Order: sequence, then C-alpha cells, then structure tokens
Amino acid sequence: MSSINILKYGVSSPSDTSPLKELKAAGYEPGDVLAVIGKSEGNGCVNDFSRTLSAHVWEPLIPRSAVTVFSGGTEGVLSPHVTFVVRDSSTTGLRAAVGRTRTLQPHEIGTSVHALEVSSSTRSILKESGIARDQVRLVLIKCPLLTSEKVEIIKAAGKTPVTTDTYESMAKSRYSSALGIAIALDEVKECHLDEAIRSQSTWSAKASCSSGGELEDCHILIIASDTSSGGLRAVSGYMDDAIDAKAITKLLEQVDREGGHVLQVFAKAESDPTGNIRGNRHTMNTDSDIHSTRHARAAVGGLLSGLVGETRLYVSGGAEGQGPPGGGPICVVYRVAA
Amino acid sequence: MSSINILKYGVSSPSDTSPLKELKAAGYEPGDVLAVIGKSEGNGCVNDFSRTLSAHVWEPLIPRSAVTVFSGGTEGVLSPHVTFVVRDSSTTGLRAAVGRTRTLQPHEIGTSVHALEVSSSTRSILKESGIARDQVRLVLIKCPLLTSEKVEIIKAAGKTPVTTDTYESMAKSRYSSALGIAIALDEVKECHLDEAIRSQSTWSAKASCSSGGELEDCHILIIASDTSSGGLRAVSGYMDDAIDAKAITKLLEQVDREGGHVLQVFAKAESDPTGNIRGNRHTMNTDSDIHSTRHARAAVGGLLSGLVGETRLYVSGGAEGQGPPGGGPICVVYRVAA
Amino acid sequence: MSSINILKYGVSSPSDTSPLKELKAAGYEPGDVLAVIGKSEGNGCVNDFSRTLSAHVWEPLIPRSAVTVFSGGTEGVLSPHVTFVVRDSSTTGLRAAVGRTRTLQPHEIGTSVHALEVSSSTRSILKESGIARDQVRLVLIKCPLLTSEKVEIIKAAGKTPVTTDTYESMAKSRYSSALGIAIALDEVKECHLDEAIRSQSTWSAKASCSSGGELEDCHILIIASDTSSGGLRAVSGYMDDAIDAKAITKLLEQVDREGGHVLQVFAKAESDPTGNIRGNRHTMNTDSDIHSTRHARAAVGGLLSGLVGETRLYVSGGAEGQGPPGGGPICVVYRVAA
Amino acid sequence: MSSINILKYGVSSPSDTSPLKELKAAGYEPGDVLAVIGKSEGNGCVNDFSRTLSAHVWEPLIPRSAVTVFSGGTEGVLSPHVTFVVRDSSTTGLRAAVGRTRTLQPHEIGTSVHALEVSSSTRSILKESGIARDQVRLVLIKCPLLTSEKVEIIKAAGKTPVTTDTYESMAKSRYSSALGIAIALDEVKECHLDEAIRSQSTWSAKASCSSGGELEDCHILIIASDTSSGGLRAVSGYMDDAIDAKAITKLLEQVDREGGHVLQVFAKAESDPTGNIRGNRHTMNTDSDIHSTRHARAAVGGLLSGLVGETRLYVSGGAEGQGPPGGGPICVVYRVAA
Repeated sequence: MSSINILKYGVSSPSDTSPLKELKAAGYEPGDVLAVIGKSEGNGCVNDFSRTLSAHVWEPLIPRSAVTVFSGGTEGVLSPHVTFVVRDSSTTGLRAAVGRTRTLQPHEIGTSVHALEVSSSTRSILKESGIARDQVRLVLIKCPLLTSEKVEIIKAAGKTPVTTDTYESMAKSRYSSALGIAIALDEVKECHLDEAIRSQSTWSAKASCSSGGELEDCHILIIASDTSSGGLRAVSGYMDDAIDAKAITKLLEQVDREGGHVLQVFAKAESDPTGNIRGNRHTMNTDSDIHSTRHARAAVGGLLSGLVGETRLYVSGGAEGQGPPGGGPICVVYRVAA
Repeated sequence: MSSINILKYGVSSPSDTSPLKELKAAGYEPGDVLAVIGKSEGNGCVNDFSRTLSAHVWEPLIPRSAVTVFSGGTEGVLSPHVTFVVRDSSTTGLRAAVGRTRTLQPHEIGTSVHALEVSSSTRSILKESGIARDQVRLVLIKCPLLTSEKVEIIKAAGKTPVTTDTYESMAKSRYSSALGIAIALDEVKECHLDEAIRSQSTWSAKASCSSGGELEDCHILIIASDTSSGGLRAVSGYMDDAIDAKAITKLLEQVDREGGHVLQVFAKAESDPTGNIRGNRHTMNTDSDIHSTRHARAAVGGLLSGLVGETRLYVSGGAEGQGPPGGGPICVVYRVAA
Repeated sequence: MSSINILKYGVSSPSDTSPLKELKAAGYEPGDVLAVIGKSEGNGCVNDFSRTLSAHVWEPLIPRSAVTVFSGGTEGVLSPHVTFVVRDSSTTGLRAAVGRTRTLQPHEIGTSVHALEVSSSTRSILKESGIARDQVRLVLIKCPLLTSEKVEIIKAAGKTPVTTDTYESMAKSRYSSALGIAIALDEVKECHLDEAIRSQSTWSAKASCSSGGELEDCHILIIASDTSSGGLRAVSGYMDDAIDAKAITKLLEQVDREGGHVLQVFAKAESDPTGNIRGNRHTMNTDSDIHSTRHARAAVGGLLSGLVGETRLYVSGGAEGQGPPGGGPICVVYRVAA
Repeated sequence: MSSINILKYGVSSPSDTSPLKELKAAGYEPGDVLAVIGKSEGNGCVNDFSRTLSAHVWEPLIPRSAVTVFSGGTEGVLSPHVTFVVRDSSTTGLRAAVGRTRTLQPHEIGTSVHALEVSSSTRSILKESGIARDQVRLVLIKCPLLTSEKVEIIKAAGKTPVTTDTYESMAKSRYSSALGIAIALDEVKECHLDEAIRSQSTWSAKASCSSGGELEDCHILIIASDTSSGGLRAVSGYMDDAIDAKAITKLLEQVDREGGHVLQVFAKAESDPTGNIRGNRHTMNTDSDIHSTRHARAAVGGLLSGLVGETRLYVSGGAEGQGPPGGGPICVVYRVAA
C-alpha cells in the first residue's frame, strides 16, 4: 500500500513524454510512478493506434510493475493529457495499488473466465495493499479486445468467440471487467456471475473499464481514500443518465464545502441502450458514421468540462456494467488545505 | 408583425410530420405556422440528406410564406425534434417575422454580396413587422452552400468560388449570413463590411446561421421579445467558449427568478479556431474522421442538455461570425405565469 | 410476365427525379415502370436518409405495383444514378416481374420467418409471371432493418430481436432475404433452413439484397433472360473474393464475343469475414471509422468501373448469403444487335 | 549509388517489426536498408497515428541515413505491409538513393520555398548517386503537414499559413513536394515555379508524395532502372483518371511480355477535382463523413489489386501535382529471369 499523489499534464501528441520532465520538476522520479493514465486522441475504438503509441512510448520510462491505462477518444472539448499516480512518502490521504491479471486467451475475453480473473486479481491487490473495500473510490481497468486475427484463432481452435464483431468485443470485455470488479467489491455475489453474464445488466458503482488492442492482460489500478489525514481526497458517485448534471454538481459541491479544488475527474459515459434519454430519442445507436462511444464521450465530456471549468478530464466511453444503463460512475479527486 | 407561440415536438425520423397533429391538438392550424425549425439527424455537413428530406416533407404542409430552418446533426444526447413558430391571436409577449433573400448565385455564396442581401432583407423584415432592433433576441438563418457542381458552374463562368472545399463553403456562407445580421442590427457598420469579410473575425451576438444544400436563398426568422404583456419571453446571451457554463446558468437563473420554465434554447457551437480551450489543446480541428462542427454540437449539446434537463434543444454547429470565436450565441425562450 | 427494357440515368441528388423526363424522351411512360433501382449517395447504413429521400420522391411518380430498390453508398468512383426496369411491348429477350412480401414484424426481421416469406413471395412471382427458374439471372431485394425503436418494441413485447446492434441487423436481414431466394430457386432445400440460419454460411448465386430503414416489407424484383429473341440479354456469375477480376472479365468477354455492349452491372460486395484476402490481411473489419460495407463497395466499385469503363454501376454492400463469403454475385445486362 | 533489391512483407499491426526477421532470412542485414516504405492502417489523414507508430518502431532499427515513408490508409482491400529497399552487392538492374531536405519551418510548408528545398535536395541526391534523370522511375517523398499548433505558431510569428485547414495542408504539402520533383526532373522549369504554385495544376509523372504529422523535413527516395543487366526492372506510367484500367494493364502487359513477375506497384490516387469521372458525377468531394483521399485509395486500390491479383500494394491518396488531375502516376517494379 502506497500513499500517493495525482498530477496531470497536457500532451502535444500521443507520443509526447515531456510530462515526465514536469513530473521531475514537481519532485517525483520515474521510479515513483505507479500508473500512467491517459486520454489519447484516437477514435477510442478497435483501430485506435494513438493508445498503442502512447503505451509504447511510456512503458519503457516507468517501472515494470507500473501500469498504463490509455483510453482513446478526446471527442468534443476533451484535451489529451496524462495523469500520473505516484508514490508519495508523506501521508496524503489517498492510496493506490496496481496489478495485472494473467494474459487472457482470445476465447476468454468477455466471458465469465475474464470476470473471475479480474475479481481474483482485484481481491489479491486489495489484500496485499491493505485497502479496505469501503475505502475504494475507483477501480480503473484496461482490458483487451478481439481483432479479426483473434477471432480466426478462436475459430481455428474449435472454440466460439464471444462475438465476431470487433467493435462489440470491446463492450463485452468492458462488461466482464466491470463484473469482476463488482464481485471483488461485493457489489455482486459470485454465485450470480453466470446470470450476470447472460443479462449483461449488472453493474458496479466504482468501475471504470476501457478496452484496447494494445494489451493481452488486464491492467488494474485501485484508488482509495483515507480521510484520516493528508490533503488529498476522492469521492465517487454515478450519473443516472448522460445528462445527469445533478450527480456531478453534488460531488463538486462537496468538494466546495470542504474548501477543496479538483485535481482530476474520472468518468464513464455511454449511450443509453434504449435509444432514449428521459423519454426523448437520441441517435447515438443508429449513427453508422460515428460509433456511440464517441458520441457519449463528447456529450458527457462537454457537460463535465463545463461544470468543472476545464477540459483535461478522464472521460471514457462504453459503460457496460459501470453504473446504471445510460449513466456511469464518476470519481472526483481533490485537494483540501491540509 | 405577429404575436407568436413556440411549441416543440420530437420526431421519429426526418420524414415524420406527425407533430402537425399535435400542433392541431394544441389549437393551431397549419396556416398559423410562420416557421418550422428542426434538428434533423444527419451529419449536418455537405451530404446531409436528413435536412433535405425534412424540408421536403414539411414545405407542402405549411404556408408558402413560412420558412423552414432544418439544422442537421443531433450528435451526442441531442434529440431530433421540430419547433413551430406559430401566429397567436392573443398577445403573448413574443413576436416573430420571417422572410427570404433573393436566390444567391453560386459565386455570391460566402461573399460580401451575400452579406448585403441578408442585411437588406433583415432590415426590410424588421421594418415591415415593426420590430425594433433592441427587441430582437434571435435572428435564425438557413443559407446555401457550394457543391462540386456549383464550384464547376462558377469556374465555367470564369468566376472564382469563395472556396473549392465544399465543407468549408458552409463556414463561409454562415459567416456572410451572420455579418449581414450584424449590419442589420447595427452591431457592425456597413462601411466595415469589406474588412470584416477579409478578417472573418467580426461577430453578431444574436445570429444563428446554418448552411445546407437544400436551398438556394436564405431563410430568415426573427424572434423578438416585448415584455410589456403576455407570458412568453426570450432572453439572449453568448458563451465565451464551448465550456462557458456560466453564460448558460446566468440565463437559466433569470428564467428561474421570473418563475418561468424553458420552452426552447437556441444555441450555436463551434470548435475554437486556435485549437485551445482555456489554454488546453482540443483535437476537433485535427480529427479527420469527424468534422469539427459535429464535435462542437455534441459537446455543447451535452452541456446545455445537462443544465436545462432535456435534450430536445436547438444546438447548431459552426458559429463563424456568431458570438466570440470558439463560443456562440444562446437564446432562451420561456414561459412565465402570465 | 413482361418483356422489359433497362435504362439508366445519372441523378444530381437523391431528390432528383429528372430522369423521368429522359425516360419519356426514350418513349416510355411512368405507367410502364416496373421498378426504380438506384444508387443513392448516403452511407448505405442505418441512418442513410438519401435512400429514404429517393424512395419518397420516386414512389408518387410510379405505379403502386412498381417497386423501388434504393441502395445507399456510392463510395469511391461510383456515380449516383437510377436504373429503370420498364415494360416493353416488343419482345426484348429480357423479362422481369416484381412483388412484395407482407409487412415483416420487427421480431421477424433476420429470422427464418423472414426467409420463408421471401421464398414464398418469390415463388409466387415466378409462377404468376411464368418465368422458369433457370431463366432467372438476378433477384434483387430491398428489405427492412432494426432501429433502436424497433428493438425496444420487440423487447417490450417480450420477444428477442435477432440482434440489438442496428448496423448488424442489416446483415441479418440481407442474409434471410438471400436465403429465401436460395430456397425459391432450389439452391438450398427448405428442410435445411434452420441449419442455414444457424450457420449464416449458405448462399445463392443470383441474390442481391440490401437493407434499409425506409420500408417494412421486402421489395422483390426478378430479372430473367430468354435468349430466343430480342436484343437484350443478361448473364450472371459471381466473384470468389473482392479482387476476383477474372470472374468479371469472363462475363465481359462473353458480352464482347456476342458483339454486345453493357447496359448495367448489378454486383454485391463484402469484406471477407476471415479478415484475409488471398492470404493477406485486410482491415475492413477492424476499421471503427468506416463500416466494412462502405469499404467493400468502394473497392469492388473501383474494380468494376475500371473493367467496364464507367461508374454508373449498381454495386451494393454486404453480401451475406449472396455468393461465396468475401465475394458476391454479378449480373451483367447487355444489348446485342438484334 | 547502390544496386538494390525490393522485398515486401505483410505486418500484423503498425507496430509489427517482425518483417526484419524475414529480411534477415532473405540474406540482408538491417544495415543494408536504404528505406522502409509502408502502408499503415490509419486514416491516412491529419490524425493518423498508425504512421507515427510505424515510424517510431522502425527508425531505431535501421541506419540513420535510411528513410521511412509510411503512408496511412489501407481502405478497401489493401493490406498493411512494408516494402524494404535494400542495398544489394550484385548488379540487380535497379538502383536507389535517399536523402532529406532540411527541416521545413511551419510557414514554409506547402509554399514555393518547400518546392525549392525538395528540388535542390533531389538534384543533389541524383548528382551524388550518379543516377541520370531518364533512369528515374519513381521519386517517393514523405513530407510534413500543418497541425493546429503549427498554424498558431505561424500566426504568432506574424506570418500567414498556406491554409488554416489541417487536412487541406496535406494537399498543399504534397503539391509543393511534387512540384519540387518536377523541377528536379526538368518536367517543369524553375522559372515557372510561382505560376505553378498559383495554379496548383502542374504535375510530375514520376512523383509520389504523402504527408504526415510524424516528420518535419521531407524524406526522399529515388528509384531508377538500368536495364543493362540484372533481373530487376521498373516501369512507370500514369492513370488519366481513377478508372484508367488501360494504363495499368499496359504496364502489366509489358511485364508479361518480358516474362517478369510483379514485385511491387507504387500508385497515387485522387478524387477528380471537377466532381466528375468520364462525365459522370462522383461524390468523393461532397462526402463529409469520409475524406476524398480515403475514397480514392479504396477505389484505385480495388482496381489495382484486381488487376495485379494481390493486395499488398502501395496506393497512396492525394495526387496533387502527381499525374494528371483525377489520375496519378504508377510505377511497377518487377523481376525477370536474369
């Protein structure tokens, strides 16, 4: 278990690693890095090479035990940036722990096996780090997807892929990851796993999962708050739908009341699967030019940026199993006068 | 000059004219319609046939003197709908007047000739309707664009198109329309027209202009507020940038103070031409998969929908000459207890 | 049964009906029209309103018994146009017959019920028109798709949609239509229907099916060749993959040998589901910016246009059940000196 | 001057450098590499990070003097691959030479300064390598583009960018590069440079230029044929329009006559700027969902792949100054029995 700090910096491109200099200027070494979490400027979908490029340039610069979570897509006003989670020798009030699952076989992606690997790895990380479940504010996961080649590998092995649609595999992978988190945090009972896989409708209030072609295992980052001391805090909630400004302002008002200022917001966004928001039709699911995850990031990113007053926010698209359908979890990390 | 009412209804597709039944149920006849203003669900760009389809199905149903303004693009949470501006025999507090310019020749689109046609038509409409400039809350214009064929026609005639890029012609057309409004409303002096065309940086605080391939002239709708009596009001302002939540909440708070409830919001959105919002980079101008107008509508539509609490809002993309660069005008129409 | 002629004309937009004048100039009346088959310039996917617009402007101009088949997507070099199938009082050598299925309920789309409706309607049309199976060169079908609303209607009725992905519903609908054709033409036995629905891998060599949101039933057009007399002929074959130039040149060489010239080519195109073409990877199935049907139309349209020497060709995307996987049927209609 | 060989290999992703092993198995060392030319699977436009990723992984593996030319976009049937140009100690019949211009300042991109830098560098490379102008079959250039940041840098310096539209800057950059080649090869006289910049309509028959955000200078590769000995040859021609199959078959027939087989084809493709191909309208310039360069690559890639019989071909989009408007140069490299 580490006491941590959170710092974020804009990047000029997916291959920009200059924030490392800024991190050093702020008094941290590359060896202190637990995680690099970034929004990169690709389409956030199957063929998003901005994520791969970012992972590629950052991984040689940070410890092998550190994880990267690059989420593609800075639609609308969102600004490409990286957020560092770094070990801090002082007691900051925030703690974090990271880990990985084993490599998932292609045919396991998006299945109950995937969910169980995530839940057991998450539990191990919690146990080793001494973080209690009720201190967890956010579990951030980067998980793999299916490409055409992986689909063919699965079929050649006589197995059945969870889907043959590569874009849809991202949703299936996110859902299994979220379900694993929900089980690890006791939001869902493990005995309900099969039913949850069937229904695709269970959810965690703390999960933020994004899929990518740049990895084969799941990268897991847990952020926990311990308000007993230190100036850093994290609070979480969830939006009931994609225009749930109240859920956001409620969290921001808490920050205000405590005299804090926002360091970072981690949010998930998705298009409502019913095709409606508060009774009115949206067109995110019938737009064959722009995938719904891109629409959702743009809209929720616009709302969050307006309310927070800045655009370097972590808004990730596709909230299957993460918050209520059509909505999504939010975690606000902030600093108060210590 | 007509006292008017504003009513809006969702549509199930760009060819859905069932709102006419709802209009009748609300006590109005097709002959009362001054304007049909719609958000249709195409890409809002050059090849947006949802706009053409909507104009096509609506125009036979309304008086010849009425205008249609269909703005394509319901990115993110925005919901396809139509807003009727109808004559009302009682004194409502809101007035409106409509008109058209003459047909613009292809080589005139986006030029100072275009701006002058708009300004003279707008002035005529104001004069005939008896609306004073300071009562104007919104001037909504639908204006033409250049297609490949029009570009070739211009070249064949030995003339020079304002641009050979069909998507960019939409921006040029919006700018000239907005400039025409600014001149008609005395926001810009006519003697500064040439300079304003050169700089492409002058703006009106009341203009909302959108381009489309479905017409050859400009459709003009003016909405004015006369608070001396009646229960309908309109208030306008403008966003300084695409995340200017304060500009919106200021208007919404005024509605609240007056005990009103929002009937409709008309907003313009654009990507900041500098590539930055409050010092942080955005990627709307370098995304070659999604045009910047689509990004901007999604983001500002998300913010507005969150703050207003509903998604059937008129958010139009491309705010050249409409509000400050990167921002855009907003007009809130609301009803108070009469 | 009617002896028919085939005429094609370019259009300036999806709402351009001026080809009707050209048809009259060629000696035909609107009442002679059996079918209007068009390539319109939308995305050819779920939200393609160019198809709806074209159907909307054409249907009032042709007999109620005539069918429209608008296929969206003129990617690459393809040129928007309409092809008329008109009754001809002389014996031309080509015959055609048209019809429709009953309206399909949303939950039936893409199922075996859908396939059976198509096969029984196709058989009826063949029987009534006296066209023998071995004379059939092409069966062209336009069939419905699932929108978000239809998916919700199905769920509300306690039924299960064939898919909840609106884009994928287009593929399922095409496959069921093609399977219906295959059964009607005795290419597949009806007793193998369930297995064929499961495998999604059976195919017809004469089917060309496209899906659209602009209709609820299936429009069916059958083109048959009777070489006993007249100057019009049709020959069909199929491409084994998307670069099978030999399959095309073989048909064109036959036309040449008979001293004919091409009137129209009807082709289907699709991305190979394995992700490979002749052993080399393609990226159509992993491109989250452009759907695979658009890629396939552009590529096959480029090949066909180069070989035929013109761009007003009917190339439709998504060849599920139509020709071998990754390939697709081709039908060349041509005129010889009578 | 080096005698060279040409080898090509498929890649599984933009970061796949496994072809280096295949190159070694074929008897070459990384130190032999003069150039790595690749088709990567991004959008080929401003935000194509597949190109950047490929350049990033390959540059550390090849000599500093070697150049990379990654062209984004494998639309339609095209297959991602890399082509190596390697020094060969035997006399192969093909020669190549590479070099770079100095770094171009942002305000120089797409101007006559850019063209002059290319022409002088090209001339120097020709002179140093002893390649005669009439032996040149292809000059391949990778050149920079303008991003939002570069546009702001130019403006901040009180200078004027050649365009503020980042996508359009790619076209301007390609044109200036092509013009530089045309001057170096005496296809255009240097005294006509200013006029050529104004008209944007002059062209080289040997140029193939692509723009990218991954470099600041121009990478230049010249391929020349010396048929006096050796088994490798190159022949060049150009397509008059995007469906000019005859131009291709003419070259392929020459290869056949000489008993050769094709090693690689380098082609440029573009949408005809008039909006027509052989008198029929195309929609590549009015499609606001897919940029015209993507359409053109897909269509010409489909035609070439069909005629050549394979899909690992170098088809680059945007042929401004490269071949006649709407067409583009083609260079076929082939091997004959020595």
